[in-house]
Amino acid sequence: MALAAASSLAAQNRPIAEVKGNEVKHFVRFERGGRAAYGLLAGEFITELTAAPWAGGVAAGRSHNISAVKLLYPCEPSKVLAVGLNYKSHIGNRPAPTRPEFFFKPITCLQNPGDPIIIPKDSKNTHYEAELVIVIGKKLKNVSRAEAEAGIFGYTCGNDVSERDWQNGADKDLQWWRAKGADTYGPMGPVIAAGFKPGPKMQISSRLNGEVKQKQVLSDLLFDCPAIVEFAARYVTLVPGDVIFTGTPGSTSAMKPGDTIEIEITGIGTLKNPVTMA
Amino acid sequence: MALAAASSLAAQNRPIAEVKGNEVKHFVRFERGGRAAYGLLAGEFITELTAAPWAGGVAAGRSHNISAVKLLYPCEPSKVLAVGLNYKSHIGNRPAPTRPEFFFKPITCLQNPGDPIIIPKDSKNTHYEAELVIVIGKKLKNVSRAEAEAGIFGYTCGNDVSERDWQNGADKDLQWWRAKGADTYGPMGPVIAAGFKPGPKMQISSRLNGEVKQKQVLSDLLFDCPAIVEFAARYVTLVPGDVIFTGTPGSTSAMKPGDTIEIEITGIGTLKNPVTMA
Repeated sequence: MALAAASSLAAQNRPIAEVKGNEVKHFVRFERGGRAAYGLLAGEFITELTAAPWAGGVAAGRSHNISAVKLLYPCEPSKVLAVGLNYKSHIGNRPAPTRPEFFFKPITCLQNPGDPIIIPKDSKNTHYEAELVIVIGKKLKNVSRAEAEAGIFGYTCGNDVSERDWQNGADKDLQWWRAKGADTYGPMGPVIAAGFKPGPKMQISSRLNGEVKQKQVLSDLLFDCPAIVEFAARYVTLVPGDVIFTGTPGSTSAMKPGDTIEIEITGIGTLKNPVTMA
Repeated sequence: MALAAASSLAAQNRPIAEVKGNEVKHFVRFERGGRAAYGLLAGEFITELTAAPWAGGVAAGRSHNISAVKLLYPCEPSKVLAVGLNYKSHIGNRPAPTRPEFFFKPITCLQNPGDPIIIPKDSKNTHYEAELVIVIGKKLKNVSRAEAEAGIFGYTCGNDVSERDWQNGADKDLQWWRAKGADTYGPMGPVIAAGFKPGPKMQISSRLNGEVKQKQVLSDLLFDCPAIVEFAARYVTLVPGDVIFTGTPGSTSAMKPGDTIEIEITGIGTLKNPVTMA
């Protein structure tokens, strides 16, 4: 049935990336036979695309069962922005920022669903952070709130892995480069939900070895997604495929080798990664 | 003569990227007729290459006079690292870092030689920073000092443009994302000097409207280039074409629209950019 749905979609001659009304489409990036491609996921079936959906990708004439491919982080950004202190429950008694507080993560920190978060040998305090991640669909600079919203292609789940001792602790660096940017400290996926609208009652949660550690509704966000995109694009040109991690709710704790961490967002899915030590 | 030199080099059948003894080669990236390419510069002549020299580029069979092309920032990094507080003269009375203190600049901040530094409307205190920039030539992760040094392809001039009010002033952000990462805040060029060895007596300087503002010898560096690369690569995989700005000497001052800023390093050249307001 899912295959039929995907095929009929292609047959409709509608742009693959188009979503209407309350429709939500799930896009993935995957590897098969040493080759990476984008795809549209419907049920168990992936319709392979010729390019990223925001880059005019169309059905490539090949379908795959999801069990026959390896899912990759779902886009290849030219840059990764992230927002700090953006959930009221995470800020707690600290003063709330008056504007979104950004930082950069390098693209080498991205990790695939299912692949390990590798803690560096000298890290003693590496935490998970459940995050809603914005995927940009248009080139954006100096845009209105409405243009910012229209420039969002979709959303995925992210884990903004953070070494607290390097971020704010005894071994604090001047900036968060390795605290937030070490290799594998940015898992993303498994899908990009296009047409997804972050509703106030939708839940974001994390589970460490199956135990719920963070659980919050999206209405707890201080700056919402269009506001985040609008402010970033006042200073930094955003391009299709770029991503913005939007902050984490509540409080977090340390992970250790052997752990498994899951990030789940209503309507998007679950990002699951094992934890190992370098 | 210069054309003859370039032709004879190609005729020798030596790898384009190879340098021997004290030889220094100057590589550029340029645009001509709407097409961008890498090249080897000798005198006024550019031997066009089929790819970046660290990616196996060879002579493409075309040469250009430098006056017939537009020079671009000399490589296309997947990430831009930068080091803060890395010249003794810049640290002054502040405690010296015990390890290199990195931050990231986004690739959208890169700017070509000759093209403007565009100050955002709400910036009141944007400074120049003369910097020696490392260009990575090999994939590096967890390497020795010797491997780090061998992984450096060459060096270029950079201007780590910095908004001091957003970095450390009254309007300070949590992290330096826009202070160091706004569009056009990372001019680089004009050439990559391969085989260049940063000698202790070599000079780095900046000139604002022709007046010398910074002037220092490279022996003033706190962490030298192999140490910088080695430490970064403990946490973050570096790939060919990635760049690392290595810090600025002395003190800096604000630029205003209409100004011209030049960064000069002995043996590399001069990076010159006008300043405008958005």
